[in-house]
Amino acid sequence: MAIITLTTDFGEKDYFSGAVKGAIYSELPDVRIVDISHSISPFHISEASYIIKNAYQSFPKGSIHIIGIDSELTPENKHLAVLLDDHYFICANNGILSLIASEIRPAKIVEINIHDKIETNFPVLDVFVKVACHLARGGTLEVIGKSITEIKYLKQFEPLINTDKNQIIGHVLYIDNYGNVVTNISRKLFDTIGKGRDFSVSARSVSFNEIHETYSDAINFNIDKEKRGEEDGKKLAVFNSAGYIELAIYKSNPTTVGSAASLFGLENRDTITIKFE
Amino acid sequence: MAIITLTTDFGEKDYFSGAVKGAIYSELPDVRIVDISHSISPFHISEASYIIKNAYQSFPKGSIHIIGIDSELTPENKHLAVLLDDHYFICANNGILSLIASEIRPAKIVEINIHDKIETNFPVLDVFVKVACHLARGGTLEVIGKSITEIKYLKQFEPLINTDKNQIIGHVLYIDNYGNVVTNISRKLFDTIGKGRDFSVSARSVSFNEIHETYSDAINFNIDKEKRGEEDGKKLAVFNSAGYIELAIYKSNPTTVGSAASLFGLENRDTITIKFE
Amino acid sequence: MAIITLTTDFGEKDYFSGAVKGAIYSELPDVRIVDISHSISPFHISEASYIIKNAYQSFPKGSIHIIGIDSELTPENKHLAVLLDDHYFICANNGILSLIASEIRPAKIVEINIHDKIETNFPVLDVFVKVACHLARGGTLEVIGKSITEIKYLKQFEPLINTDKNQIIGHVLYIDNYGNVVTNISRKLFDTIGKGRDFSVSARSVSFNEIHETYSDAINFNIDKEKRGEEDGKKLAVFNSAGYIELAIYKSNPTTVGSAASLFGLENRDTITIKFE
Repeated sequence: MAIITLTTDFGEKDYFSGAVKGAIYSELPDVRIVDISHSISPFHISEASYIIKNAYQSFPKGSIHIIGIDSELTPENKHLAVLLDDHYFICANNGILSLIASEIRPAKIVEINIHDKIETNFPVLDVFVKVACHLARGGTLEVIGKSITEIKYLKQFEPLINTDKNQIIGHVLYIDNYGNVVTNISRKLFDTIGKGRDFSVSARSVSFNEIHETYSDAINFNIDKEKRGEEDGKKLAVFNSAGYIELAIYKSNPTTVGSAASLFGLENRDTITIKFE
Repeated sequence: MAIITLTTDFGEKDYFSGAVKGAIYSELPDVRIVDISHSISPFHISEASYIIKNAYQSFPKGSIHIIGIDSELTPENKHLAVLLDDHYFICANNGILSLIASEIRPAKIVEINIHDKIETNFPVLDVFVKVACHLARGGTLEVIGKSITEIKYLKQFEPLINTDKNQIIGHVLYIDNYGNVVTNISRKLFDTIGKGRDFSVSARSVSFNEIHETYSDAINFNIDKEKRGEEDGKKLAVFNSAGYIELAIYKSNPTTVGSAASLFGLENRDTITIKFE
Repeated sequence: MAIITLTTDFGEKDYFSGAVKGAIYSELPDVRIVDISHSISPFHISEASYIIKNAYQSFPKGSIHIIGIDSELTPENKHLAVLLDDHYFICANNGILSLIASEIRPAKIVEINIHDKIETNFPVLDVFVKVACHLARGGTLEVIGKSITEIKYLKQFEPLINTDKNQIIGHVLYIDNYGNVVTNISRKLFDTIGKGRDFSVSARSVSFNEIHETYSDAINFNIDKEKRGEEDGKKLAVFNSAGYIELAIYKSNPTTVGSAASLFGLENRDTITIKFE
C-alpha cells in the first residue's frame, strides 16, 4: 500500500492535520501516512519547496505527496496533481511546482477538476485527500484532471551570475532548526561557475575562503582537544546535506553559543555573494 | 484494527507522547495511532474541545480518542469513557465532555473503575491506554466502568442572545496557526437569530457587514491582478471550515502582513458582538 | 515487524525527520516508526537522555531507538549500536549512552564500521537508518560493528552526597512542557540517603518539607471547593512519573498562573539542595 506524505503550514496545534489523517484512513485503512512538516511558515512557498524537495527523494517511488500551502482554490490558483521523478505531488498552482521541478521535468501535470463542491475553506481535506486516495488505489491522473503543460512560474529564486562569470549573487533560502543559514547557491552551480578558482563567500560582515565538506571538517582533530581552543561556535561555510552552500556555526545552539542567523545578522532573502578570482 | 488518536497538552518535546505510543504498541502491535495535537495550551479545556470536535468527525466510526488534558484522577475529577456519535472518547470529567457533547448526546458514559493502583502521575499512560486498548480489542464500556448520566458541565462557553433577539454576544474561542480569530458563534446560531437581516460583526476597533463563504470570496478576481491593489493582509469575516464565524486576514502571516489576532488586538475570550437590524 | 523510534534535535520544521522516515520505509515497508521527540534542544545530550530513558521502557522489547543528537562522525565521536535492557539504541559516542546506561549495563556495544562513505552531513539518514533497518530485519550487532567495552562517560550529571550523608546537592535536569522543574535527584537516592528522616528541599527562594506522591496530593479535597481558596498555582514538590523529584506548580500554565521554572527563577543546571535532619 502506498505512502501519503503531508507538508503543510497547518502548525502543530490546530485540528487540520488530524482531520486530514482521519479522512485518509477513512478511505484507506492500510495506507501509511508520514508527516514531513506542518511547521512551514504560513503561505511561504519557497520554504515549502525547500522542505519537500529534500524530503521526497528518500521515499519509495510511487509515494504521494500532499502539499498544503496556499491551497485555496481561486480563478488564479487552480489545483494540480503531478507525476515527477516517479513521485506524485498534489498542490496548488501557486508557483511551488516550478520550484520543485526546477531540475526535473514533470512527466505529467493535470489540473484537478473533481470539484463538484467548489467552495471549501479546507481544500486539503475536501479535495487533496480524495485525489491522494484515488492515486493510492492505483487510479490515473487523467481521471481526476485535465492535462496541462503551462504552470505558474516563480523565477525570483534563482541566483544571478554576472556576465564575466566571476560572481554569483544568491540569497538566503532557509534558516534551519539550528539557526544555520542555507543559501540558494547549489554545489553544482558553484562548481560550474567557479571551475576550481579561489573564491570568497560573503554576507554582511562575515566572509569565508573555504567551503567544508562536513561541519567537523572545520576542526583539526590532529591537535589535542585541550589545545584546540573553543570549537563550539566556530564560524564555517559547508556544503549541506541538501547540496547547497550553508553558512553555519559548529554545534550551533541558539540559546548558548548562538546561531549563524543571529550571529551573522542574516534573514530570509538576504544577499550572499561569491566572488571568484 | 481500530484507530487510537491522541489529543494532549504534552507538548512536542517531552517523553510523554512517546511513552504512550510505546505502551499502546506493546498491547496492540497492529493498531494505528494518530496524533491529533500535543500542543494544546496546558490545562486549556475549551481549546482541547475545539480541536477534538473538529478532528474526530473525519475518522472512521469506532475510532478511540484519548484526550490527555487535566487528567489527574482526584475525588472531583474522575475518569470517563464515552460513546458519542459512534466514536469513543477517554477523558477526565473536567467539563470537556460537556463541550464535545454540546450538540450530540452521548449514547453511553461510564466512570472508569479499573484503578487498582489509584496513585499515578501519568494517568494517560497508566489508565487511558489500558481503556483504549480494551476498547480497540472490542471490549465493552461496562467492563471498565460504571454507567453514569450526570457529567461536569461547563456553561460559560456559549454565546448570549439578548431578549429582543437582535444581538449575539460571543467571544474568541480559539486563535489558529495563521493568527485568525475563531469566535464561538456558529453559522447555525447566526442564521437562526439573524433570519437573513443585515448585520454588523464588531470586535474592538474592527467591524464587518459581510461574512464570506471562503477567504478568497473577499477578492474580486474579475479585476486584473495588477489593478486590484494589495490583497494580502485584507481584513475579512468568514464562515470557517469548522462552521464558526472567523475574523481573518487574507493570506495572513504573523511575520509579514501580520495576523488578525495581532492586527485586531484580540485575545482568547475577548468579546465579539453581532447586531442585526 | 519491529518498531523504530526517533529522538532528535531536528525540530518540527526541517526536512530531516521526513527524509529519515522515507528512507526507513524504502527499506522496510511494514516497519512502524514512532517519533519520540524532534524538539530536543540542539546538541543537548542530557536532555535527550532524559527523554529517551523515560520513553523507551514503554516500548516492546526488541524496539530500535535512533538518537539523532550530535551525531556527526569525527575521530572523537564514533557511532555506536547498543543492546541494553533488550532494546537497541543507535547513537554517537558522545556521552549519551553513559547517561542512558547509568543504571542498566549494556549487554553489548559495537562501534559501527559500515561507513564506506565516511563524509556525510546527515549521518542519521546515511548511517543510522541502515543500521536500524539491519537490526529490524533480525541482523546482529556483530555484522555492523566491532565490539567495544569503553564508552565516553559524562559524569557531571550525578547528584553529590556529603560525607555526613545528610545532604544531597542535585541540579535541574529538565524543564517540562508545563514549566515544571525536574531535578536529577531520584526517589531511590532520596530514600537511600534520607532513611525516612525529616528534610527540606530548597532551590533559590523556594523550600519544601514534603514531597507529594501526586500533584493533587497537595490539595485537601475534604474541604469544600469554595472554601479551599486558590489551588491553581499552588507550589509543591512531587515524585514525578519518571521517578525524580520535581518542583511544580499545581495546574501550572506559563501564560496564566505561571510556571514553576519562571516563578521559582530556576533554569537548567541550577542547584537543588536537600538537607536531612
